[in-house]
Amino acid sequence: MAKPVEFWFEFASTYSYLAAARVEAACADAGVPLVWRPFLLGPVFAAQGMTTSPFNMFPVKGAYMWTDMARCCADLGLPFRKPGSFPRGSLLAARVAAAHAEAPWVGAFVRAVYHANFAEDRDIADDAVIAAIIDEIGVDPDAAVAAATAPAGKAALRAATEDAMARGIFGAPSFLVDGALFWGNDRMQQALAHARAA
Amino acid sequence: MAKPVEFWFEFASTYSYLAAARVEAACADAGVPLVWRPFLLGPVFAAQGMTTSPFNMFPVKGAYMWTDMARCCADLGLPFRKPGSFPRGSLLAARVAAAHAEAPWVGAFVRAVYHANFAEDRDIADDAVIAAIIDEIGVDPDAAVAAATAPAGKAALRAATEDAMARGIFGAPSFLVDGALFWGNDRMQQALAHARAA
Repeated sequence: MAKPVEFWFEFASTYSYLAAARVEAACADAGVPLVWRPFLLGPVFAAQGMTTSPFNMFPVKGAYMWTDMARCCADLGLPFRKPGSFPRGSLLAARVAAAHAEAPWVGAFVRAVYHANFAEDRDIADDAVIAAIIDEIGVDPDAAVAAATAPAGKAALRAATEDAMARGIFGAPSFLVDGALFWGNDRMQQALAHARAA
Repeated sequence: MAKPVEFWFEFASTYSYLAAARVEAACADAGVPLVWRPFLLGPVFAAQGMTTSPFNMFPVKGAYMWTDMARCCADLGLPFRKPGSFPRGSLLAARVAAAHAEAPWVGAFVRAVYHANFAEDRDIADDAVIAAIIDEIGVDPDAAVAAATAPAGKAALRAATEDAMARGIFGAPSFLVDGALFWGNDRMQQALAHARAA
């Protein structure tokens, strides 16, 4: 029996888009259970002494990242438009995903938020945009947001972010499989292979 | 006619080992000319405000890197032993490679230095180790080192490192193909594909 793949992602993270767009189908193809694990990178970076994205801290690396994103999206057949703002606030989106991580629509929601941020340049930091996205996937936005912003919803995301740090996660996307950590979109296949072999 | 692939590498760099071990054969298979471009990462990191390897600056990332290296080496069939010291000084090795970048033995020398550092845990910062490696590949160490440490040899490496920064290189390994930059061992195939298409 294959071990589950925990997919840890942050909605502001560029390379998480590449993995989020494909992970549900890839796990299904591999016969591996998928666990959606939204978290916030901000506290994780802060614990490493960083006050913003490494792509903003190191501008030459950041400039390259956008070129690389465009190339990787083209290779993977994913639409891409450089967002007008980076990194975008992801708090409400992450709370919605955390509060509804086991809902049948969570995959569609995750993909729609990334598509909004990195293919349509919509401002996912705007609560109205998140509500519109929930509506677009056929879910009641008022109820979904109410659960996400209730104390239990907020606590779910806070606990996830603390769990990420406790388990050695330092960036996104990350995959945790049977205790083993795999970092980056480039390691998705390695994580799946580990799940099949574990 | 395929464009040449410039392979930019630093002997202290872990992921450069993965690429250096394979790049000459991969370019030959792809029918793409290869240009060996040794340089020093230290001044490149310093220009970004870093005083050591990012893997030492961010310990959780560094710890993961060694796990990832062991896995990637296993996947690629490359021997790996975590070096007792990291990053190791690479000045003489880089000067030898820069001064002899067009010698027919440069590929063998590059691979032997990486193998010494990352598979045998030999101290490549020791001039005697570099001389021994040159001898092991059947080249006269005295003459090779004399050329590398003459003013023209030192200037060749200094110019390469300045050229790296001028062309937007921020880490190693990097590939430059017809002006386009590709960073990391994970992008070697993308660089080769670009060279074939350019």
